[in-house]
Amino acid sequence: MPEQSPLDLAEGHPFGPQNLPYGVFTTAEDSTPRIGVRHGDHVLDAGAAAAALSSDHAELLAAPTLNPLMAAGRTVWQAVRAELRAWLTEPAHRAAVEPLLRPLDDVTMRLPFEVADYVDFYASEHHASNVGRIFRPDSPDPLTPNWKHLPIGYHGRSGTIVVSGTPVVRPSGQRKTPADPVPVFGPSVRLDIEAEVAFVVGTPSPTGTPVARGDFREHVFGVCLLNDWSARDLQAWEYVPLGPFLGKSFATSVSAWVTPLDALEAARTAPPARTHELLPYLDDSADEPDGLDLRIEVRINGEAVSNPPFSAMYWTAAQQLAHMTVNGASLRTGDLYASGTVSGPEPDQLGCLLELTQGKGPFLADGDEVVLTAWAPGPDGTRIGLGEVAGRITPAV
Amino acid sequence: MPEQSPLDLAEGHPFGPQNLPYGVFTTAEDSTPRIGVRHGDHVLDAGAAAAALSSDHAELLAAPTLNPLMAAGRTVWQAVRAELRAWLTEPAHRAAVEPLLRPLDDVTMRLPFEVADYVDFYASEHHASNVGRIFRPDSPDPLTPNWKHLPIGYHGRSGTIVVSGTPVVRPSGQRKTPADPVPVFGPSVRLDIEAEVAFVVGTPSPTGTPVARGDFREHVFGVCLLNDWSARDLQAWEYVPLGPFLGKSFATSVSAWVTPLDALEAARTAPPARTHELLPYLDDSADEPDGLDLRIEVRINGEAVSNPPFSAMYWTAAQQLAHMTVNGASLRTGDLYASGTVSGPEPDQLGCLLELTQGKGPFLADGDEVVLTAWAPGPDGTRIGLGEVAGRITPAV
Repeated sequence: MPEQSPLDLAEGHPFGPQNLPYGVFTTAEDSTPRIGVRHGDHVLDAGAAAAALSSDHAELLAAPTLNPLMAAGRTVWQAVRAELRAWLTEPAHRAAVEPLLRPLDDVTMRLPFEVADYVDFYASEHHASNVGRIFRPDSPDPLTPNWKHLPIGYHGRSGTIVVSGTPVVRPSGQRKTPADPVPVFGPSVRLDIEAEVAFVVGTPSPTGTPVARGDFREHVFGVCLLNDWSARDLQAWEYVPLGPFLGKSFATSVSAWVTPLDALEAARTAPPARTHELLPYLDDSADEPDGLDLRIEVRINGEAVSNPPFSAMYWTAAQQLAHMTVNGASLRTGDLYASGTVSGPEPDQLGCLLELTQGKGPFLADGDEVVLTAWAPGPDGTRIGLGEVAGRITPAV
Repeated sequence: MPEQSPLDLAEGHPFGPQNLPYGVFTTAEDSTPRIGVRHGDHVLDAGAAAAALSSDHAELLAAPTLNPLMAAGRTVWQAVRAELRAWLTEPAHRAAVEPLLRPLDDVTMRLPFEVADYVDFYASEHHASNVGRIFRPDSPDPLTPNWKHLPIGYHGRSGTIVVSGTPVVRPSGQRKTPADPVPVFGPSVRLDIEAEVAFVVGTPSPTGTPVARGDFREHVFGVCLLNDWSARDLQAWEYVPLGPFLGKSFATSVSAWVTPLDALEAARTAPPARTHELLPYLDDSADEPDGLDLRIEVRINGEAVSNPPFSAMYWTAAQQLAHMTVNGASLRTGDLYASGTVSGPEPDQLGCLLELTQGKGPFLADGDEVVLTAWAPGPDGTRIGLGEVAGRITPAV
């Protein structure tokens, strides 16, 4: 029986040619980071393929990160994507491409791009309401008065963004419950996850020039899954008045694969009905829908604990981009902005343990492994798999 | 009469050989960014000098940014500083060095280093109390309960940090006063400054390893002045619950010159008496003093409006570094962390217009130019001048 070619995928494989996410890998023999494109359970060495097939984009694909490709703009992204699909599907390229596919198990995935600025939003009404009730139980409204008027966000720490699979050391810090007369120091006892979707900026924008919602697809290269690890006890004590800091800054994990936005066209869906009239720069009532039907699964130690629906997010990534730049702030290639915890209306659709346990815990124990996966509807009834984001908690130092 | 050599400074010049701040410059003839060292009102082309004098550090000084030098660590910083002092003061080097000095007016200063993560603290008790009274008038205590237990900070936007002299476009955004039934959109009408001192990280640290207060001088390369431009109307509407975002992210200006920490030894001074017992990682009661006697002047359109004393800051930069990393967050070369607004106890020592006008304004008008300068006591009765940070407001787009 002839060995099956890695080019021949099972029908409907979520990492088939309708998907083609980008990553960066090394191998045991060669520690030079190289751009890879996922095809089934294999990785295509994209730089080697581009060189072998004399692509016009060979230089971009020979880079050690995705940043040069991301900076090249949407026309190039679409051209490269069309080339990759041809290489992986047309019989004429089979002989050249087949030897450049490596099993996923034989490569090590790296952080796929250099992160410039990292922003985290707070775009799920369900999450914000649930957290508001837990953190501010005396407030009459769990949402702050601004919540329905603007996508609330804040800057996070870029330097501690790590790729899926990186162990996460339990952070230490100050915490103080109402029962404590003074703060105590020690390893976090309320270590949590936040299941999020993150958007990677490719095309930069100059200072002083807001980016309109309609230009979202010109600027955003692709999508990652993201786990915004959160030490709830540190966060609760520190976050008033200037927001989260050490409760989040120890680690943020992203998937090794960046799914091109163009792979998610069939997943576009209308966001929830807006309950408040929006200012023009945010009013998307007449736009093509910019919600995304991504179905996330959260597993802890192999057990599925939640299925947060990204389609339930109140604010879209296009609105977030418009808001983030409306004050004239520039974009850089490698800017990353995350959705905030994805939570739906149902008890089995909540994106963090704080909500899943109604603030009572248990939270993460040392040794626990958290894996987020997701898929979206693709063209012609296919599925688009997003790269998983996995991380295991190691004890505090 | 022979022309005076740029090497011969007036007695006690604040940019004499006791100072030697680093910057990056270009010239009309050569747009390649080069490292410069300020000497009086001239700039030494440090890379050219190092090459001419066969320095062991010629490669570091030939870089287009300070980052490689900053990453090289304190032993190298001290060796390079000793070389520079010798080149600029010893007669043997005069002939080689003199032609490599250019008048400041003939060069264009650039952002001197690539910024990694940017953190802004909130370390002046006077400022935090004044702002607390203005933003939260109904609170019984103007300071939040955590304020005396930890240096409050948050991450800001690295991509919009600009060098002194860069015009600042008035940002637009949402604001809502209690009198407005819904938010309104438009150019900020409460555009403010924040006079701050910023610390530039040179030596990185690995994830999971807190940096102790005592290692502050191993990691921090030098000091800048910083103006944290703030749109108070945007900030007031957006900042609850996740902190400042668009109210700050449009622009942050830093001085073109980075003063080496070693130039500020004579400026070390005890911070204010601590009113609360601190956790061990912050308790500096037995440390050599890590406060800094920097005397800031704020000028608007040439008129001196305030003289904030950095010595009044409750939290030191060493404590801030220890806090920022106590959860295991890593440091990268180019991380920048700022003190927060420097305000002293007196009405003429306040570091922002919000405080100077007790919240009533006037704030900045289009065309206003703000200049922050500062000096510190140097060795043997000299002064150490810090590089100014200047910026002029241009109209909203």
